[in-house]
Formats: sequence, C-alpha cells, structure tokens
Amino acid sequence: MRRVPGRLHRLGVADGSIKKSRIVLERMVEQRFEQISPADFFYRNRDIAGFSNPSRSLYMSIRELVENSLDACEIGRILPNIWIELTQVEEDSEKDVRTYRLVVKDNGVGVEAEHIPKAFGTILYGSKYGFKQSRGTFGVGGTMALLYGQITTNNAFKIISSTGKKEIHEYRLMIDIVENKPKILEHKTYPNENGWHGTVVDYTLEADYTNSKSKIIEYLSKTAVINPHSNIVFIDPRGRLYVFARVKETTPEPPKEAKPHPLGVDVETVNRLIANTRSRDCVSFLMNEFQKVGRKTALDVLKLANIDPRTKVKELTFEQVTALVDAIKAYGRFRAPDTSSLSPVGVEFIEAGIRAVYDPEFLHVVQRPPASYSGIPFIIEAAVAYGGNIPEGEDIHLLRFANKIPLLYDERADVSWKVISEKIDWNSYKVPKVKRLAVLTSICSPKVPYKTVGKEAISDRPEIERELTIAIRECARELRLYLSRIEKGEAVKKRLNVYAKYLPKIAKFSAELAEKPLPDLKPIFNKLGLTEKVIKEVAAEEEAEARELYGG
Amino acid sequence: MRRVPGRLHRLGVADGSIKKSRIVLERMVEQRFEQISPADFFYRNRDIAGFSNPSRSLYMSIRELVENSLDACEIGRILPNIWIELTQVEEDSEKDVRTYRLVVKDNGVGVEAEHIPKAFGTILYGSKYGFKQSRGTFGVGGTMALLYGQITTNNAFKIISSTGKKEIHEYRLMIDIVENKPKILEHKTYPNENGWHGTVVDYTLEADYTNSKSKIIEYLSKTAVINPHSNIVFIDPRGRLYVFARVKETTPEPPKEAKPHPLGVDVETVNRLIANTRSRDCVSFLMNEFQKVGRKTALDVLKLANIDPRTKVKELTFEQVTALVDAIKAYGRFRAPDTSSLSPVGVEFIEAGIRAVYDPEFLHVVQRPPASYSGIPFIIEAAVAYGGNIPEGEDIHLLRFANKIPLLYDERADVSWKVISEKIDWNSYKVPKVKRLAVLTSICSPKVPYKTVGKEAISDRPEIERELTIAIRECARELRLYLSRIEKGEAVKKRLNVYAKYLPKIAKFSAELAEKPLPDLKPIFNKLGLTEKVIKEVAAEEEAEARELYGG
Repeated sequence: MRRVPGRLHRLGVADGSIKKSRIVLERMVEQRFEQISPADFFYRNRDIAGFSNPSRSLYMSIRELVENSLDACEIGRILPNIWIELTQVEEDSEKDVRTYRLVVKDNGVGVEAEHIPKAFGTILYGSKYGFKQSRGTFGVGGTMALLYGQITTNNAFKIISSTGKKEIHEYRLMIDIVENKPKILEHKTYPNENGWHGTVVDYTLEADYTNSKSKIIEYLSKTAVINPHSNIVFIDPRGRLYVFARVKETTPEPPKEAKPHPLGVDVETVNRLIANTRSRDCVSFLMNEFQKVGRKTALDVLKLANIDPRTKVKELTFEQVTALVDAIKAYGRFRAPDTSSLSPVGVEFIEAGIRAVYDPEFLHVVQRPPASYSGIPFIIEAAVAYGGNIPEGEDIHLLRFANKIPLLYDERADVSWKVISEKIDWNSYKVPKVKRLAVLTSICSPKVPYKTVGKEAISDRPEIERELTIAIRECARELRLYLSRIEKGEAVKKRLNVYAKYLPKIAKFSAELAEKPLPDLKPIFNKLGLTEKVIKEVAAEEEAEARELYGG
Repeated sequence: MRRVPGRLHRLGVADGSIKKSRIVLERMVEQRFEQISPADFFYRNRDIAGFSNPSRSLYMSIRELVENSLDACEIGRILPNIWIELTQVEEDSEKDVRTYRLVVKDNGVGVEAEHIPKAFGTILYGSKYGFKQSRGTFGVGGTMALLYGQITTNNAFKIISSTGKKEIHEYRLMIDIVENKPKILEHKTYPNENGWHGTVVDYTLEADYTNSKSKIIEYLSKTAVINPHSNIVFIDPRGRLYVFARVKETTPEPPKEAKPHPLGVDVETVNRLIANTRSRDCVSFLMNEFQKVGRKTALDVLKLANIDPRTKVKELTFEQVTALVDAIKAYGRFRAPDTSSLSPVGVEFIEAGIRAVYDPEFLHVVQRPPASYSGIPFIIEAAVAYGGNIPEGEDIHLLRFANKIPLLYDERADVSWKVISEKIDWNSYKVPKVKRLAVLTSICSPKVPYKTVGKEAISDRPEIERELTIAIRECARELRLYLSRIEKGEAVKKRLNVYAKYLPKIAKFSAELAEKPLPDLKPIFNKLGLTEKVIKEVAAEEEAEARELYGG
C-alpha cells in the first residue's frame, strides 16, 4: 500500500477536517447495488418510451406497430396494405380507460420464424441497427408496445408471420422482463399455400381511446399523406371505418445501407470497423470502410496521423487509432456525404401536400444539400406557407416529419421549434404579429437524433440546427419579398387611387380657370398605369361616399 | 402441420390476392437481427440521455455528477461539500468546442471498492433502484457522463473513493461499450489515515463552456437554494471561483425506503414481491409487502379475488395473481400512501426562496397531501407569485423542481407547462395579459416519471397532472382574491375621492343657500372611511389641476 500522494492532499481527499462525520457514517446503511436488464429499465420507466398514460400509450402502440409495418414493406419494395383493428374487450363502463384488443396486420417482408420470439420479446433486439434510413431505430418501440400490453392486462400476445416461404408461423409469447427474454407459450405452423408474406400482431392493452382518437386519426392521415403509396385501414372500437387509400402505385426507392462518413466518427466506431474489416493495410481500410475517401485523401489523413500507410490495420495500437481519429477530425477537406442512402420527401411532394391542406397564398419549399453530424448524413427540407386556410393567430403552425413519419407530441422540445422561435426574427421578414403562417420541417437520415425513445422531438445537434435555420431563412426571405410586393402593391394602388380621384377634378378646375376645353386625361392615366377599371371603381366609391354623406 | 384456420382467412392472411409481390420478395435481402447492450444503446443514442451537443453535454455531465454527490451525502446524513473544477486541456483555440478536464469531488458515503468499476463503468448498474426518493434514478447518468468523455476524448477516467474505512481506492477505467462492462486499467490503494469518505471523479471530455456557462451557473445556484445545507464550489476554466455557501447547518431527514402502495401495482411487481417475500400465506403477504394494508383490507381484497386467505403465496397460479391484481385495482378503499418516504421541499422554504429572488407583492404556496400513481407516492408543491421583481411579459415564469433538483431544459415538454398553459384559464383569475407572474412547481417521489433519461421534463401522468392542477388553481384563487381586493380598493378609493372633492363644495353651497353656518364634515368623512390624509391629497390634486388650467 502506498502513501497518500500530494495530489490527493491538494484535492482535500486526505485532510483531517472531516473526522466528525465518521460517527455518522458508522450508522450508515450499506448501499445495495444491482444491475437491471433493458426490458426491466423500460418496464420501470415506460414514460421514457412515450407510454406515459392510457391515451398516449394507445397512440404510441399504434404508431410503433404501423411504423414497423411500413418499414417491413419498404425494404421489400412492397406497396403497403396495413390493417389496424381496435376493439373493446370489456363491456361498456363509465371510465375512459378500458381493455382493448389491438390487431395490426401488414403485407411486409415478414420475420423469419427463428427471429420472431426475440424480435418481439426482447428489448434492444432488432434489424435496424445498420446504417440505413428507417422509421424504427431503437429496437424498443414494437416490443415496448407488447410489454405495455402485458403489464396492463396480464395477457400473452400473438404474432403471426411469414416471409412468403412454405410456412406461416404463429407464436403466443410473453416477455420475461427481468431476463429481457421471450417466453414461448405456443408455436404453431400452417402451410402457406398462397405465398403470403407479412406480419400480424394481436394483443390486449389498457387504453383510453376517447382521449387519443383525434391524435390517432391525425397521425394516420399525416402518415398517409407522406406515404401516398400506402393503403391504411383503421377500424375503431365504435366500428367506424377509416380508409386512407393509396394514391400512388409505385414504391419509393428503398433507402440503402451506407458506409459511415469520416466526419465525426469516434474511436469506438473506428475500432468496430477495424474488427470487422477485410482490408489489410490502413489505406485500403480507409478507402473501403468509409464513404467519400479516395486514395489521396486516405494518404493525406494517414500522414496527418503520422501512421505508415502500409501498417496492417488490425495491428494499430490504441494510441494510433486515437491519432487517426484526431487526424480525421482535423482534416476538414472531405467531400459531402453520399446522399444515395437518403430518401427525402421531395420538394414537389411537400408542395402538393401543403397546397392540399392549406391552399396558401404563398408557399416556398427548400431542400438543402446533404450535410452530416457525427459522420451521419442527413437532408433537411423546409417549407413556409402564408395565408389561405392556415388558422390565424400569434403562433406559427409547425408540421414536423422525420424519415416520413409525422411527429405530433412534444413540439416545443424539438429543434425545429427552437429554430422558428429563437433563431428566426419573423419581424425582420415583415411578418405581422397576427398571421396565417405555417412552417413544415422534414429530416431524413439513417439516424435521426431523437431526444426520446418515444421519437417525438429531435435534439438540437448544431449541424441540424444550422441546416434548419438556413432552410427556413431562405423560405422566409422569399416570404419577405412576397409580403413586400403586396405592401408595395397596396401603396401603389393607394397612390393611384388618389390620382384617379383628384386628377379629373384638378383638370376640370384648371380648364375652367384657363377657359379651355377639358383635356383628354386617358394618356396620362395610361402613363401612370391606371386602368379604366380602377378609374371606374374610384368613381363608384366617390359616388357611394357622397350618397352616404348627403343622402342618395 | 395444420390447415390455415378460418381466423387467418378472415384476417386476409391466406388469401390469394398478394401473389404478385412474391417475385419482388425473392430479390429481397435478408434482414440481419442483432442484440445490443444498454451501453451500446446509449452510445448510439446519446441525445436520449441529454448529451446532444458539446454545450449541453457539459451541463449534463456536471449535473449528473453533482446529483450523485448530493445523493451520496444525503443517504449518510452528511453536510455536503462539493468541489467542481473545470480546466481547459487544449491550448487556446478559436473554437468554442475544446477538450476540458472535469473533476467533481464530494464528501459522501463513498463506494465500496468492489462496486467502483461497475458503478462507474456499467450502464443500468446502480444503487438507486430501490423504492426511495433520490435525485438519480436510472443508473445511467453518471456512467453516461464518463462514456461521453471516453468517446469524445479517447481517455480513461479516474475514480478515487473511500467509504471511510482503512483504504482509499483509485481506479483508472474505460468502458467496454459492446459488452457494457468496465475495463480496469489500473487499481491503486492508499492508507486512509484520516478516515476520509467520499468520491472523486476525474476525466476529460469535449465540451463547450462558452455556451453552457449560464446554464451551469443557473443550475448550481438553484441547486444551492433548494439544498441550503450544501457547500458547492465551482472553479471555471477561466479561473473564476463560484462559491455557493452553506446557509443551514442541519441535514434534512433522509428519505426512507418504502414498501409499494397497492394502488396501481401490476402482475410483474406482485410476482417480484412473491419471489422475495418471507410471508407464507396470502394475508400476511399483503400485510407485509404493501404499505397501508391491514388485516381487514387484506381479507377484503382476497375475497374480491376469490382466493382462500390461507393459500400459500408462493403457490398462487398465474391466473390467481392476475385475479389478485384485478381485485387490488377494483378495491378502491386503500388509505393514502405513506408520506414518510417522501421529503418535500416545504412551504416555508419555498416561500423564503421565492421572496429572496422575486420579492413579490403576492405569494401563495400550497403543499398537497400525498397522492400516488401506479402505486408510487408523490407530493406536489406549488407556488404562485405576482409582482415584485418578476420580469413583466405575456409569459409566465415557470420554475420546476423534482426531488430537489432544478429542471432547466425542455420546459415546454413538462406536465407543469401543460397545466399552466392548458388547464388554468388565467383570465378567469383576473390576471392581465401582460403581467409579472411566476409559478413554481415541485414534485418529490421515489420515482419521478421523467420523459427523458436526461431528467428534464416530467410526463403527464393523469394523477400528477391532477394534483398540479388542484395546487395551482388553489394558488390562483388566492391570487384572484388579491387582485380583486386591489381592484376593489381602487374603485373604493375613486368613489371616496369623489366624495372628498364634492362634499365640501356641496356643503358650502347648501349652507350659503340655507344661510346657515358651514357644518362639520368630519363625522361624515369618518363614517365614509375618508381619512384626513386622503382629503388633503384630494385638495392638493384639485389645486394642482386648477393651476394647470388657469395658470399658477
């Protein structure tokens, strides 16, 4: 055992001033330490996954399952048919919170039988951890919906799925929360004579439909708008049928798996890439495992890191990997990230969507070039709409989308809200206090940096905040031009009206004074840009005023 | 293999309409499934733990470590001495984002040597999963701060700790993210001659102090206000010393571990309690493992669940446990949860705190009786302050506390914001549009339902929303009375001024008319409540008016 070093003395760790509290400590209870599983974590903290009350939990459940369905169709380039059926299990009661049965069925690619139990019965088990744009990302949501059902109703859940092969599999499962493992209660197989593929999720949950209905319908309709190739059918507990029918018969290009962009990667990522690479030397490693890195760039970076390009990549020391990451960070001349892995909504589509809903007087849509944060590419799209059916008020109507899903809750915690309320001075764009103003923002990325596992608010990563600010400012500048033109148009009109009103009078008065005939005013009016129509309007107004003043 | 049952046909699982897409499916790539560790999850999604950018990450790091320190003192009834030192590691650069070294030292109970590596190097490993009020709850924050440091600077971190026993332990650690395990790089021990107890955390991180400074200082000062028994010292990178000195020499009663309240428990909880209980029959199980359950209540509940009270609790079937939980939910006559496990801030203390900051004209503080959500007790405290130094504006100044920590971010996502903006109609409480209005809310609970792992916003559990609404409404009613009194006072004053102005004139005129001497008006003025002072003021005003009108 060593002596206490001077450093500890400096920190006050070993001074004598705290003797007194020793007595207290002796009475102290010992701390119990324990480790909990991810399932247990979300069981204890379901609010974190958005399951905070029976109405929001129902919204979250439908949302998570629908997004899984859309993803399962997208990777197979299948036109989605999604069927959602919510029925009341308990007899009518006075309360809003009841037991419901929720069935969500899709025609997606299905899940291989061997993966079904873990895919639906294990938290942090999923197929979406790759570097690819998808709606789901955490490996939490779908399982969380089923976990919520289990803990509120104590029932097992049923999964039916087939990948289109010979068999259809049906599982009855529960989740072992402490172990974060599925318990298989039953497993049946059926012949798949028609080559059906897809997944059916069928379970019970405690929910409040009365207070979540409007959010659920809003969610489904916005999802349908931004996924026009989908058929979505919802049968609600009162037997009402909501059909969001397909309006586009082609599937969008499915997002591709992408290599990481070098900008912003850390030692952990590089170590993982080294562990999995087939490249031998450092140059080919950099060229093969990252996007946008050619031979010259690789050599430059290695030189900066003081690493011999021929070094075997698996033999790099910890210090060398650190130096390599520092060199990548310092390099600063990488090309912009590859956009082929991204699937933005598209300017035309945003325009069509907004026009359909708001029919605004002014609309401007901007799609920014791809950018990246921490090596992850993203594209920001933004639109500003003014007038039309946008409700009038002091607030701005914000519509948010992320990877083609609408975000409806926690708006004020979102980076988009931060930008429109703190970064943009709408006064300076001539926007009046009371207005009809809507802003739409959309981000697509293989990894959207959500603040919550419930995927409702996007965090204020500086790169994303910057892109959003640029995009919305560009829209706002166009809006200012439009508003200026209107203002100017109105000013001009006012001035012209004055001419139209007084010129004939002055002309008449001058003519009488000079004892000359009344001149033809038409050429002057034409020069001023006054049309017959305006002149007649002004004359009519004059007459009306006169009538009002002196009686018709 | 069975035939496809009719039910599947009904769901459309086995109809022939989807043959076409089979061709597409054959080209499909197989889905890769994988399981990730909790550390990997938070590494991939650090925004979820509040580590979204270099400035907020620094705030989060200091916050998580300070809260761990306060908890470590509270459980030992120690007056906290917390020392925070932030120094710049890199030489001056142009950028705001730099490498810093952060040292946080406390005199808390310390961590036993055997637990140090996992307590600081494993996500979801902690001592705070018990049913007890504490600042930390998730077993994520402290480790996350160190994980963030590791991935941004590639350095190991150092932990020095002692529980006051013979040795001081010093560990140099890194986190194996894939495995969610600590890697021990070095372990030294020193003799603990003075019986020191406490913990020192020492590591490097990439941070932005320029843009987080104000939030950090705000956080520390609010923490100090609500923890007046603490000494908090902060040395910032520019060498400035901030001292938040202790103003109270007694430690608060430490929160106690509590049994769960029966209201709202689920099958999972009951199963865990059954697994750990020493009780044999069901009656003693209910009486021993839950709070507020006596013999009669236990018998009533078991009768409702149709369970023989003598049944051995470990032999209950799944169906019986489910029936028991349903009976507990249906019973509805449990006494309110035990408050002894809760440690609210206290009305006097909130009052003193608000007076010190705002010096308001009006202040009303309410502490609600304990309530519970999902079997978890909580106490809501709320205050409404008006006037004084509260900044004037259309917005309400909201101050939020949870288990004695201030919440500074994501205000608009918090249930308190929902209540003050949606549930309270301030107009009906006579509050003007432009006002000086502050609302303080505080919740204490063994489990605060945060929406995010970053512990910034509290979710809108219906029970909490309800308590907050009641508490704030009660304050608002008092505010209305106050504002009415002022309004009424002003109306009365106005009326009296009229009397004071005209009564002498009328008296004089009447006296002259009746040719009688001027009567003594004093008794009448007294009866009306008009003091000499008011009469003189009115007379002076009259004179001033006259001077203004006709010149002095």
